[in-house]
Amino acid sequence: MANLTPDVTAIVQASRESLLGRLSDFLRIPSVSTLPEHRAGVMQAAEFVRLRLLDAGLENVRLIPTEGHPLVYGDWMHAPGQPVILCYGHYDVQPADPLAEWRHPPFEPTVIGSDIFARGATDNKGQILAHIEAAALLLRNFGRLPVNLRFVIEGEEEIGSSGLLRFLHEHAGELACDAVLVSDSEMFAPDTPCLDLGVRGMVYAEVEVEGAKRDLHSGLYGGVAPNPLEAIARMITGLKDADGRILIPGFYDRVQSPHPREKASWQALPFSEKHWREELVQARGLPGEKGFAVLERVWVRPTLEIHGITGGFIGAGAKTVIPARASVKLSLRLVPDQSPSQVAASLEAAVRSLFSSDYTVNFRLLSVADPAVMSPDTPFHRAAGQALAEVFQRDAVFIRCGGSIPIVPAFMSQLHCPVVMMGLALPDDGPHAPNEKFHLPNFYRGIAAVAGFWRAAAKA
Amino acid sequence: MANLTPDVTAIVQASRESLLGRLSDFLRIPSVSTLPEHRAGVMQAAEFVRLRLLDAGLENVRLIPTEGHPLVYGDWMHAPGQPVILCYGHYDVQPADPLAEWRHPPFEPTVIGSDIFARGATDNKGQILAHIEAAALLLRNFGRLPVNLRFVIEGEEEIGSSGLLRFLHEHAGELACDAVLVSDSEMFAPDTPCLDLGVRGMVYAEVEVEGAKRDLHSGLYGGVAPNPLEAIARMITGLKDADGRILIPGFYDRVQSPHPREKASWQALPFSEKHWREELVQARGLPGEKGFAVLERVWVRPTLEIHGITGGFIGAGAKTVIPARASVKLSLRLVPDQSPSQVAASLEAAVRSLFSSDYTVNFRLLSVADPAVMSPDTPFHRAAGQALAEVFQRDAVFIRCGGSIPIVPAFMSQLHCPVVMMGLALPDDGPHAPNEKFHLPNFYRGIAAVAGFWRAAAKA
Repeated sequence: MANLTPDVTAIVQASRESLLGRLSDFLRIPSVSTLPEHRAGVMQAAEFVRLRLLDAGLENVRLIPTEGHPLVYGDWMHAPGQPVILCYGHYDVQPADPLAEWRHPPFEPTVIGSDIFARGATDNKGQILAHIEAAALLLRNFGRLPVNLRFVIEGEEEIGSSGLLRFLHEHAGELACDAVLVSDSEMFAPDTPCLDLGVRGMVYAEVEVEGAKRDLHSGLYGGVAPNPLEAIARMITGLKDADGRILIPGFYDRVQSPHPREKASWQALPFSEKHWREELVQARGLPGEKGFAVLERVWVRPTLEIHGITGGFIGAGAKTVIPARASVKLSLRLVPDQSPSQVAASLEAAVRSLFSSDYTVNFRLLSVADPAVMSPDTPFHRAAGQALAEVFQRDAVFIRCGGSIPIVPAFMSQLHCPVVMMGLALPDDGPHAPNEKFHLPNFYRGIAAVAGFWRAAAKA
Repeated sequence: MANLTPDVTAIVQASRESLLGRLSDFLRIPSVSTLPEHRAGVMQAAEFVRLRLLDAGLENVRLIPTEGHPLVYGDWMHAPGQPVILCYGHYDVQPADPLAEWRHPPFEPTVIGSDIFARGATDNKGQILAHIEAAALLLRNFGRLPVNLRFVIEGEEEIGSSGLLRFLHEHAGELACDAVLVSDSEMFAPDTPCLDLGVRGMVYAEVEVEGAKRDLHSGLYGGVAPNPLEAIARMITGLKDADGRILIPGFYDRVQSPHPREKASWQALPFSEKHWREELVQARGLPGEKGFAVLERVWVRPTLEIHGITGGFIGAGAKTVIPARASVKLSLRLVPDQSPSQVAASLEAAVRSLFSSDYTVNFRLLSVADPAVMSPDTPFHRAAGQALAEVFQRDAVFIRCGGSIPIVPAFMSQLHCPVVMMGLALPDDGPHAPNEKFHLPNFYRGIAAVAGFWRAAAKA
């Protein structure tokens, strides 16, 4: 199985300028899915993807309408006996705000050194285009693909993937496959190829609390008026203790420990707590759950975070108000096998139990996402590991993604197959931030790695 | 000492229309001290007071400049052997916002039934004009006053009284007196004349907390990033327990219990916890320090209140940010003999001790005020009680003011004399709120009560 990619790498090297040109054209399209004024840009990006799939030689290429932005579909199913691999990505991007912080306009892609700067460069246009260009390269140069491929590329990833989630639920058969390939995450470090074995789930809620019906003066009523801000503080400390342990009854019952082999592999990671603290988190300390290492805390332990509190007087100076109402946004990150719906119910019960009858509490669930974990032992993960090792000249490491990608557990449960998460982004690419970039060597190596993965996945 | 006021009451009844006319003229002046665009209105109100004191027959009437708005001074010192009483009030008013909630324009005084509606009607123009009109009435009808009087009426009460506080500090001799009369507070209930025996002090602070240097994504860093909102919640619950007990070391050491006679007098008050809860606080419960009754909690117990928290995402929907920074505004109400400067130092130490070294804490003291308490046994309080009982046909009750009026303890410490707080406002007059009003019968009865107080205070 060696020598999966030298021919592809050579072709990529010879095509760098036209590859970069197509990436630039894609990045020039302002496909911000959340903003109505960018609706035309979103459609233009869908059309760009459709034409690129057609030009690459895929078949059955079409837009699949949803209630929101369309899915783009294409396939090539002429490798009988070989597995079907579904390639997933998204053509929509985050808003570019704050515009003033961009050194170059977000939709005028600019190459500086080995990086291309533009909104969507790493998330996800550069990464999904690597998949498409790998298919185009193999079909053009060899007339065939080593496996059967389906592409499904959505335009609503940044706003919740509702169209694709519904399509998956109603038409899973049209996406039937043996494995899904997703490149929408980060490598652990430059030159360290990675396979993500899991994502955390989430329960996100807002709690609105009313004490009195009206704002009160703390001179006249301080000492008898309910204070929703104080009550929210007690709720927070009642949900999580000072050691970072979440106090919701039964919360840890279904938390799984990582596979010993996976955990052992973390020892090989180029991890420095000092680097994390100083460069990534940029803080004086890394607090969190007692008894667990940094990577465990962000990858395989559930957490509770407070995202915002509003209520009372926040202007300059002193105002002695006891606010009638206050609210807090919070979320729990979940790990396998925690169930978001069960956790949401336990959270609501715990929240309500932490307020006295002096308060009216409105609990609103804003968002849920399933956690997911993959075995590192599937043939597809082995195949991906081989391809990455060959292209990057270093063994691939297993990591987790602390964030939540709802489509990943949905693929696993609806398509009953493993998801290979082969992130091509660098830790400093800055998705969602001003001056988002993509490292061009990762674009070119990504094309080779994806092609190599398909070859390795083909049954001997 | 009976029959202090029938003659005055008769004259007031015969002069109601001209008294109301002068009050309306005063209320028409937009003397909002905090707004630069109302500077002309503030000066016009000072001039109104100066002319009214002159016209009343007072002497040495003049404006005393300060760094801000001027003091208005006048005196009448022709009662040898009789006490000197200093009458205090203020001609400035709060801003009228929110304008849309006023049923009539705030500076177009409108009489409906027995009430006059306008900004400043009760706070403090109606109440201080009662003092001036009492002096005018006695001088015009009897050619003399029963006691010596000084008037000092400031234009900065709503913005901290800094000019008067400095003048008191530097020229206390010019205000030398045997007692101070203040009418700038509420009666406990309609038709229940009251003497306020104390005000609470205050320490108001803002705590700014930084965790990481930048906002972080809770997926990638949830479990290791410092969360300033969570840390603030732990600070709050570390400062005050669930029973309402403040946990700052030594905090209660200097708290004095009220005089048994004062406390006993509260039994006679027309107090209904149900009325307080439903009509005043408008809440489902009246939480607070365990073991103390409602009136004790707002009058003679110190409290800690949270006024505002800011940090993180407070827009609609879900955003998974761990904010770099958050802040909280809080205050302590103090009672005799707590010292604001000592409490401020203990608060800062306690706050700092409640954050781990993962956080950078900036503690800012925004405001302090001394507490004050008077004995109900001074001759001046007895005199005021006699006059009130005669005018209102009901014994005066002793109450406290839960709020902080910094000028009251300053008078006590600089002038070494008691302060008689004879509030003429009704609990529903709404100072600082839209549709502020003054109950006209209290204006007329106030004139009689003030005149009666001076007569009763005159040595037999």
